[in-house]
Order: sequence, then C-alpha cells, then structure tokens
Amino acid sequence: MVDAIRPCLDGGRTAIKRVIGDRVRVEVDLLVDGHDRLAGCLRYRQASAVEWSETPLLWAAQLPPTPQLEARGDRDFWYADFLVDALGIWEYGVCGWVDVWQTWAWGLARKLADGQDVGLELRTGAELAAAAAARAVGSEAAALRRLAEALRDPGARAAGQKLALAPETEALMRAYPDRSAETASSLILRAIVEPVRARFSSWYEMFPRSSADGESGDDPSDRPRHATLREAESRLGYIAELGFDVVYLPPIHPIGRTFRKGPDNSPTASPGDPGSPWAIGGGEGGHKAVHPELGTLEDFRHFLATARAAGLEVALDVALQAAPDHPYVKEHPEWFVHRADGSIQYAENPPKKYQDIYPFDFGGPAWESLWEELRSIFRFWIGQGVTIFRVDNPHTKPLPFWRWCLESLKAEHPEAIFLAEAFTRPKLMQALAKAGFSQSYTYFTWRTTKWELTTYLRSIVDSDLKEYFRPNFWPNTPDILPEQLQVGTRATFIARAVLAATLSPSWGVYGPAFELQEKTARPGSEEYAHNEKYELRRWNTARPDSLAPVLRRLNEIRRDNPALQTLTGTVFHETDNPALICFSRVEDNNELLVVVNLDPHNRHSGWITLDLPALHLAAQASFQVHDLLADVRYLWSGGRAFVALDPAIMPAHVFRVRRYLRTEHAFEYYL
Amino acid sequence: MVDAIRPCLDGGRTAIKRVIGDRVRVEVDLLVDGHDRLAGCLRYRQASAVEWSETPLLWAAQLPPTPQLEARGDRDFWYADFLVDALGIWEYGVCGWVDVWQTWAWGLARKLADGQDVGLELRTGAELAAAAAARAVGSEAAALRRLAEALRDPGARAAGQKLALAPETEALMRAYPDRSAETASSLILRAIVEPVRARFSSWYEMFPRSSADGESGDDPSDRPRHATLREAESRLGYIAELGFDVVYLPPIHPIGRTFRKGPDNSPTASPGDPGSPWAIGGGEGGHKAVHPELGTLEDFRHFLATARAAGLEVALDVALQAAPDHPYVKEHPEWFVHRADGSIQYAENPPKKYQDIYPFDFGGPAWESLWEELRSIFRFWIGQGVTIFRVDNPHTKPLPFWRWCLESLKAEHPEAIFLAEAFTRPKLMQALAKAGFSQSYTYFTWRTTKWELTTYLRSIVDSDLKEYFRPNFWPNTPDILPEQLQVGTRATFIARAVLAATLSPSWGVYGPAFELQEKTARPGSEEYAHNEKYELRRWNTARPDSLAPVLRRLNEIRRDNPALQTLTGTVFHETDNPALICFSRVEDNNELLVVVNLDPHNRHSGWITLDLPALHLAAQASFQVHDLLADVRYLWSGGRAFVALDPAIMPAHVFRVRRYLRTEHAFEYYL
Repeated sequence: MVDAIRPCLDGGRTAIKRVIGDRVRVEVDLLVDGHDRLAGCLRYRQASAVEWSETPLLWAAQLPPTPQLEARGDRDFWYADFLVDALGIWEYGVCGWVDVWQTWAWGLARKLADGQDVGLELRTGAELAAAAAARAVGSEAAALRRLAEALRDPGARAAGQKLALAPETEALMRAYPDRSAETASSLILRAIVEPVRARFSSWYEMFPRSSADGESGDDPSDRPRHATLREAESRLGYIAELGFDVVYLPPIHPIGRTFRKGPDNSPTASPGDPGSPWAIGGGEGGHKAVHPELGTLEDFRHFLATARAAGLEVALDVALQAAPDHPYVKEHPEWFVHRADGSIQYAENPPKKYQDIYPFDFGGPAWESLWEELRSIFRFWIGQGVTIFRVDNPHTKPLPFWRWCLESLKAEHPEAIFLAEAFTRPKLMQALAKAGFSQSYTYFTWRTTKWELTTYLRSIVDSDLKEYFRPNFWPNTPDILPEQLQVGTRATFIARAVLAATLSPSWGVYGPAFELQEKTARPGSEEYAHNEKYELRRWNTARPDSLAPVLRRLNEIRRDNPALQTLTGTVFHETDNPALICFSRVEDNNELLVVVNLDPHNRHSGWITLDLPALHLAAQASFQVHDLLADVRYLWSGGRAFVALDPAIMPAHVFRVRRYLRTEHAFEYYL
Repeated sequence: MVDAIRPCLDGGRTAIKRVIGDRVRVEVDLLVDGHDRLAGCLRYRQASAVEWSETPLLWAAQLPPTPQLEARGDRDFWYADFLVDALGIWEYGVCGWVDVWQTWAWGLARKLADGQDVGLELRTGAELAAAAAARAVGSEAAALRRLAEALRDPGARAAGQKLALAPETEALMRAYPDRSAETASSLILRAIVEPVRARFSSWYEMFPRSSADGESGDDPSDRPRHATLREAESRLGYIAELGFDVVYLPPIHPIGRTFRKGPDNSPTASPGDPGSPWAIGGGEGGHKAVHPELGTLEDFRHFLATARAAGLEVALDVALQAAPDHPYVKEHPEWFVHRADGSIQYAENPPKKYQDIYPFDFGGPAWESLWEELRSIFRFWIGQGVTIFRVDNPHTKPLPFWRWCLESLKAEHPEAIFLAEAFTRPKLMQALAKAGFSQSYTYFTWRTTKWELTTYLRSIVDSDLKEYFRPNFWPNTPDILPEQLQVGTRATFIARAVLAATLSPSWGVYGPAFELQEKTARPGSEEYAHNEKYELRRWNTARPDSLAPVLRRLNEIRRDNPALQTLTGTVFHETDNPALICFSRVEDNNELLVVVNLDPHNRHSGWITLDLPALHLAAQASFQVHDLLADVRYLWSGGRAFVALDPAIMPAHVFRVRRYLRTEHAFEYYL
C-alpha cells in the first residue's frame, strides 16, 4: 500500500510551490502485510508531458542515523528527489511493489546460514530469474538467463547459491523488477515552479514622481516638481547599487480628479496636489494608460529596459478599483454596484467613506466581461515586459476570481510573479497564497518582540505554510510607519532591516524614507506625515547618516549566502537575555547565525545555548564565527557562546559559521 | 469559501471513529473577501439517510477567551457539534454563506452612530426584508413583511431604524437567510460510530481449558485436567467481580495433531499434550467448530449467555491460518501456497519454520472464494451471538482484505468490535486501524520509562491518531512476559496495571497469570515458562497475595470517572524526579490526576508543577485531591505539589480533583 505521500496540501487539491532549480523531496509510506521486502519509485513529469520519469525510492530506515532523523522519531518512510528544471506545473506520484527477489534472497541467506536444505528455494529462484530475463534486453537478458540456468542445475548447487546472493545479481534483478502487481498512489500531486525571484528577492519601493532634480529636501517651502519616468531612471543606479533586485512602483496610471485627496489624506485637494496613485483612472485613460505627467508608454518601456540593464526587475502595482473619472465608469456602468437611488456605490468601511474610489462588482450580472477585462490588464503589462506584480488589497476581491485569473495567467506566462498586499485575517492571506499568489506581505511589520518574531517564523517554518506561503518582510511601507520606528533610534532601523533581510528570503523597504530614517507620523496614526501618497517629496539620498551602506551590505550578504535564500533550515537558539534574539539559517554547507539586540537604547550581553547539530557542528567543536556586517572574527567552541551588542555601534551580528579545515597552512584553517 | 473542514483524515478518504452518544465537534474555516459577515451550518446525516440535518456554525472569535483557545493562537474558525445516536456510518459537511442582512445592519449601525443620512440604506434593507418574507411562512412571514414596510416608509424613519437593529429582527432574519449563493464544502466526510466498548473496555484473557476444579496449583506433578466450557463458566463470576467487561478466549476450535507443539514450544508433543489453540483445525472441524474437549456449540452459547448475565461480553480469537489437519487443506488446496515440489508452504520467518501452521494464499488464484470463506467465519460466530473479535496477526494478511471484510461486516453488524493484535511497524498498525479495526494492541507493553510513556501517549493524543487509532494497553499477554515484570516486584505489577488502566480507555490483562504475579520466563526470552499456550495450568486465584483487589478497585474507578473513558484531555505535568510520572485526564467536570513511582524498589518523592488550567483550576486555587486507590484526601493549593510514593506500600496515586464548593456546611465543601 502506498500511503501518505507528501508534501501534500489539502488532500492534493492545492499545489506546493517551488522555484526553478529546486530538488523536490518527496516522502511516502510503503506498507505491506508480513515480512515482504518492498521497492518503489517516484514518478514525476511536467504537467504538459505524457510520459512519467521515474527515480527509485530509498528507505530512510537504511540511512545512517542523523540528529534530524532521531528527532523525527520515524525512520520508516521512503523518499526520493526530483529536479524541477522548467517553469510551470509539475506532477508527482509514487509506485510501490513487493520486491519478490529480495524477499527470496533474504530468506535463502538465512536458511543457508542455518544449514537448511534449499533445493526447493533454488528452483523458485530460477523461475524468478527466468521471468526477469524475459523482461530484460541484450547482455543483461543473457546474464539473467545464465543465472536461471545456474539455479536450476542440481549439479552446481554451491555456485548457484553464491551467484544468487552476489551484489551484481541483486543489482541486475533490481533493474528488472516484476511490477505486474505494483500499486500507484491514488493521488497525483502538483508543484507550481516559479522563477527564483518568487522566493528570493529584495524589493525597493519608490515614487517615481518624487525623483525631480535638485533634491535638497532641506527647504520644505520649495515645492518639488512632478518628475517623469525618464527622470526617475536616474534613481535606478542608486537602487541597484544598494543590492536590491526589484524596484516597485506605485500605480503609474492617470489619477482621478473627482474627490481627489489632498496632503495627509485631507478630503479636498488643491489644484496643484498630485492625488493618490491608487485613485486610478481619468480622462487620460485607465489601468492600461501611463499618467501623462510621468510620460508615455514608450517612456515606461525605456524605464523597464534601463532597470533591467542595471539588474533590476520592475514590479508594477495593480489595484483593481476605479476613480470616479475612470473610463470604465461611463463605458461599463454594469461593472459597478448601484445604490438604491441608481448612483454608483463608492468604497466604504462604515462609517468611513472612500468617495474617490469605486470598487468593482465581481459578483454582479456582468461579472464575466469584468473578469475578462481585469485579467487583460495583467496581460497588457506583461506585453510591455513586466513580469512582477504587486497586487493591492487582493483580499477585497473574491478568491475564485484570483484562482481563475492567476491560474490562466501563469499557464501563459509561468515567469510572472504576484505579490499579495493583503493585511487581513491570516487564513485569508493563506487562501490567497493557495489561490496562486507567489509571495505575500506579512505581519512582520508589527512583530517586534523575541516571542512575537519566534512564534511568527515558527508558524510558517514548522507547518504546511512553508510549502506554499512565501513571506516578504517589510519594515515599512507608504501605508505603514510602525510605532517602533516612530519612537526608535537609528539602531531600530538597522535591527528591523537585519531581521527582515535575514529572517525572510524576500524583503523590501519603502525608500528613501527607510534609509533616511524618516520617522514623523501624523499624530496618533501609523501613517507618514507628508505621505508621498498625497504629495510630492524630495529626498537627499546622499545624506551622511543614510543607512544605504548597511542595506548594501545586507543585500550583498544575502546574495553570497544560499542559507538566506530559502526558509528551510531555520532554527531559533536560546538566549538568557530577552533582548537578544538568535537564530540560524542553513542550506547545504552554508550556515548563518544571526544575533540581534532588540533594545535600541541599551547595550545587552548574554549567553546563547547553541543547537550545534542544527549548525552541523559536533558537540565539542571549535569553530570560527565571522561577523559579515563588521568583518570581525571570533573563535567559539562548544554549545555556549557569549555575545554583547551595543546599539550605539551595531545592534546585530550576522555570523557565517566557518568550520575547521585540515590543511598545512594556518591561514587556510577556516573556510 | 469553505476551507479545511476537520476532523478530516487523508483528505477525506478515511473515516474518523466515534462511539454512540458522542458529540462530534466539527471545525471549519469560512473565508470571504472584504468585510462581509458570514454565517454557516454543519450538515450531518446517517449515511443511509437522504435528508441532511443542519445546525448553525458558531464563530470561535466570539467565544470568551479560554487558556485552550489562547494556546491555539487561532480563534478565527467556526464550529458546531452533532450527536451520533445510532451505530454505523455518519456523514458530515458544511455550508457557508454571506449574511447579507448582518453586513447591512452592521454598516447601518455605524453610519447612524456617525450621524450619516441612511435613506438609501433603509431602502436596501426593505428589499432584503421583503425577500426574507418570501422565504418565510406564517406569522414570521407577516412579521418580515411588516419590517419591509416599516423600512420603506419615509414617514417613520426612526421607528424603521430601531426595528431594523432590534435583536428580535436579527433572530428573525437569521432564521430565513438568503442561501442562494451558499458554498458547500466539496468534501463529504465520514464518521464510523461504534458501541461504547469499542473505546472504553476492560479485558480479561483466560484459557478456559485451564479451569478444571481442584485448582491447588501447588503440586506440579499433579497434572491438571482439560476443562470444558461448562466448567470454565465458574470463572465468570470472579472476572465480573474484578470489574472487567470483556472476557477474551483464545481460539476454541479443534487443534491440529500434525507437528503439534509440546510444552514450552518444544517441536514434538507427547500424547497428552493439548497443543496450541492457534494451530486451528483437525478431524473434528475447523474455524466454525468447537474443540470437543471444550464442549459443543451449544455449550459455547451457554457460556456466552452466562457471561452476559454477569455483565461480560465474550471476545473470540480469530486466527486466519490452518493446521495441516484442517479440513480446508484437503477440501481447498487452492487456498494455500504450494512449493516448487507441490507440497503446501508452511509458515516461516527464516530461518524459523512453523510447520504446524499453513498460511492462506490471500493473493492466489482462488482468492475470491477464500476471502468469502474467511469472512463467513466472522459471520458464523456473529450468528452465535459473538460481537467482539480479537484478530490474531492481522498485519500478515493484506490490507485490502481487511478493508473489504470489515467494511462489509460492519455494514451488516455495526455492533461488532474488532481488536487488532498487530505488534509491527507503527505505520502498518495505523493502516489496520484505518482499514476498520476498532482497537489495537500497542507498544505500551514495552514502554516503561517516563520519557517512553510520555512520548508514546503524546504521539496518539497530539496527532490525527486520536481520530481513528484506539489503543488497548496490556501489561502482559500469553505471548509476552515483558522484562520489567520478570525482574520486578509486586509494585511493578501494580504500577503497570495503574498505568494501563488510567493511560488508556481500553486495557486488558492475561490472567490469572497477571494478578498472581507469575514472573518466571523461559530463560533468555519474554515467554512465560510453562506457557498455557502449550500446556494445561492450574491457578489458585484465592491466594492472599493476589492483586485482585487492586484490579477490582482500578476497574471501579474507571467506571466511576468519565475522564478515564476517553483519550481526549490527556496532559502530562512536569515532575522534578525522573522516577515519578504525572498526568491528568479530564472530561467535562471530571478531573483525574495520576502519579506513579516507576521505581519498584525505592521510595521516591518530588515536586509536581501542575498545569492548572488543564485541571480547570484557577492560578491560586485551593483544592482537594482525593486518592481513589487509598481513599485518602490531601489539601493542595497553587501550581506546585509535593508527593512521596513508597512502592512497598502503594506505587501510585489516582487522584480525583475536588474543587471548593460554597455551602454552609463544612463537610460539604468538596464534591
């Protein structure tokens, strides 16, 4: 019986997620009554393929014991890996069968050792060998026929027995198993394979309109000019230099004028106010147009090409809603909800009214044409060369829409990546990931204590979430200037960046507000004062106190260390000081250990109890920890380590663990 | 969206198990985009029924917070219970829908509080009320029509608003929801409902043939006589008096003579040796016959009736194998495996040979008639009045056979209970439970340390196993005299009985060997010396050192305390002494706390750190613990308690927690 094939989400109804180049580890339980020996294979294919590829399953009970296996308390499972070397949907399943030859050979060996007569057994073995010969071809068929003859020959008992139990016979028989009674797993499971950036990415959000020259930012009365996309290109070098690989732009479409919001979200705008980019649509066009003040579609394509030349992908914001001036409103009133008096229903979260925004009626009578049109927005921008989308508030649109939209888009464009901007009930965020979103914003923004961070990470890493929910950690966004940044110090910004960049394979900042440590909020809120959503800003990124060097170093460390590019292998290590959090990330032979002082005001020291096996270290090992932030090395040994972190200097260590190497030269001792 | 309905095993392919009278708690996630209010119902029915019953789902987020909910870290789920008041298969599923009226009323209330004009909202509400009226009947329809009119009347705004938000309106609208766009769970899940004894049972295994009169047992040369079933009836009063409710008999069929085993499993038997009851079949008949030395079929029915009159069910052993003399061997050679020389294959576990036993060929050419015949054995004995079967070595027969056999038997006889005697790989034991066995023997027999017992219990209670795997804990069996009993003291036997009887709702002993503390093994083995499997024994159950009083008290405590009748609510409490294990079991308002000294030689004392919420106790509570074994009471308070246990007196406490009750009389202070 083939049972409990895994990873398996929702009984097989939800696909797991992987990125190209991953090896997918599949585990399964093979069961049979009695003492029969088993064998099996993993089957896998691209969903579009007809033929299955097969690779043999191995039995974990035959592996050398490891601390990981011991901790599981279960070694009675089978496993194999397959490489996903193409984008799109893959399928996997498992077959198992009784290995009749192994069962027979095991019994034969025991009976021989006991001195029993095995005449009858050899006759049975000859039949098995002859049957295998009939399945084999060429020289191997001939070898199997010779085996059958040797076992049949009563005059050459000893030779026959020896040949039957020889390792080469075992290999030969294993190559031609009798699979006539094999059992296949009833489930065919699916893996959706996406580009590496779906898992490992570093985002920088910027408002291109705030990129005009003369960015002194010192005189607030000197009102900034609206920049074009061409002018914004000047920022790309800076962003690439900081090591980011995705530059994310708020919506670039024409902005509505009716009910346009003024500075700091005030209900009325003055003539010069640029409006919120999320109030999409005006006389100049809707979701498929470029705001004239930013430039033309050609300018956008130029921006895209310049970014790509600098190693940056451009992520576009897709907000599926319309300003009252959006062409859709006149052309397709049937796509909106109408109130009892016939007027179009604006967005609201009672008692709040958002009269500058009309939501679509996803379940209305014209839902089919609406859905088609909305999908065509993504198609349009993919046609312009965009591959990454940040989707605004997907949780206020129906899940069936997303399943349909994302599934069909990914079928045409498996290279496309979708980030869900959903800050809502955790289960709805998870449902969006299952519906096809590649990444998701998370509650990291508000998780600040050791307990909160540990619990939150574990809820992903130690559960099924790790198979489909890919976090993207943001210390800030234009919508959120969290409390800890408002009241924090420079060390708070650094600590939050280190945590985001090392706890999650994907992270992002809203800049330059982040690296310039902007921390003034509208009183009593978590919103930036003078929020760029409603007004133009100037930023002096050359300021000497900018955190740009720290961000650059963090992104460099992330690129150099595979352990930071995946969530698997995350372990928290005990510290005796609640202000110190310590965790490690491990991938293959790359072991990173991070220690952060969560108190931005005081120096803290303490002892860490290291989980040495998790770091691939022996119990009494001596080893080096190399702080990649400060480029300082320490010698540690055993499971207890002392650390001290002064936030006035640097609130974090990002250690690479370097193990002893036996060479002749002392300076080569460490990797 | 209706997601993650649970309990759900193997994506819905495996039924959960319950017993009659249980309330089945079903949980589910209901999800919708945006801020809409949700409602839903649990649907359930007997599988044979056409109509679903429905009961409303409640939202856990609206429950008062409890330590249990806090520990889950998730209150965003819906739940409801249904009562299973009939045996057999039940089905359950879930429906969810947007509660349009609640969503509307919530928005209305907020807008009114904000002083907004709600003229349009009231018109919408009138439409909703009118639609509900069309779904309603009688006076409620009239009330809903009045509501619609009130909301439509611009002259009676205030009255309309008040009526709209009145609690009775909410209840009325909730009774007639618009379910036209409801979503049902795609899965229909199944629960198999069995008699209470499937979960809660106390077994006593005895060899009826060892029940002959004159049971002095003092003179071994005085060879015992083979007793009949009629004589064995004399034992039933004793067993019932000990509080057991299942008396389990080894096979009662004719025993083979060819290759019959002698005393202590010697390969040859003397003429007077009775043979192993598991070598089934001889000239006198096979699996449907009674061994003539035990009596007739009528005697067996008489035994059954006498047992039932004493409150005992009889469990019959079914071992699907044949002695060489079994009638099947001559009549149906096609049901056996034939070796290369045409002889029938005996059982073997190389190099061991069991020439007294022929296994059946479950996958052979005549498998269909074989399976039918084997199932007919169960049917035959059910026809005689048997409802409980202990199945010998089910793991050496194919899982598909058991699925087919047990499913069809349970369809005809949902009252039947099947105990799997499978000591094999845990996953195969679990697969047998999924295939339909009601209970299973376990590794308890060899789990002796605090860590082993804790880990083993947790592996059931904290996993899906609790939904389908029902343990039956045996300190000994005729096959197993475990090492700890061989080298133990009287306290070992008591401690093992307490652990088995309080850790598992089902337990059993092989007696009188257990209560008489028989501990002599064949050297170097875990087999009893002079094993009753191969020879007749005499037992003096009147011996003054018998543990009968302890077993009687344990079974009495089990009957009096619902907490010991189910596995849910098992919690382990920390002790600072490794020799002391402490756990609690809780059901409704019944809280039991067990402490056992695992060292049979030394007095041990130590501090317990109590999980007070698990015992339904407040942080600084004072309470009484009443040792039900010794009938001694102690006053405890707070989360730390001191215990001392001397194995020479009694190695265990079985405490009932008795909470303070405010009454006027001091002697009524405790329950």
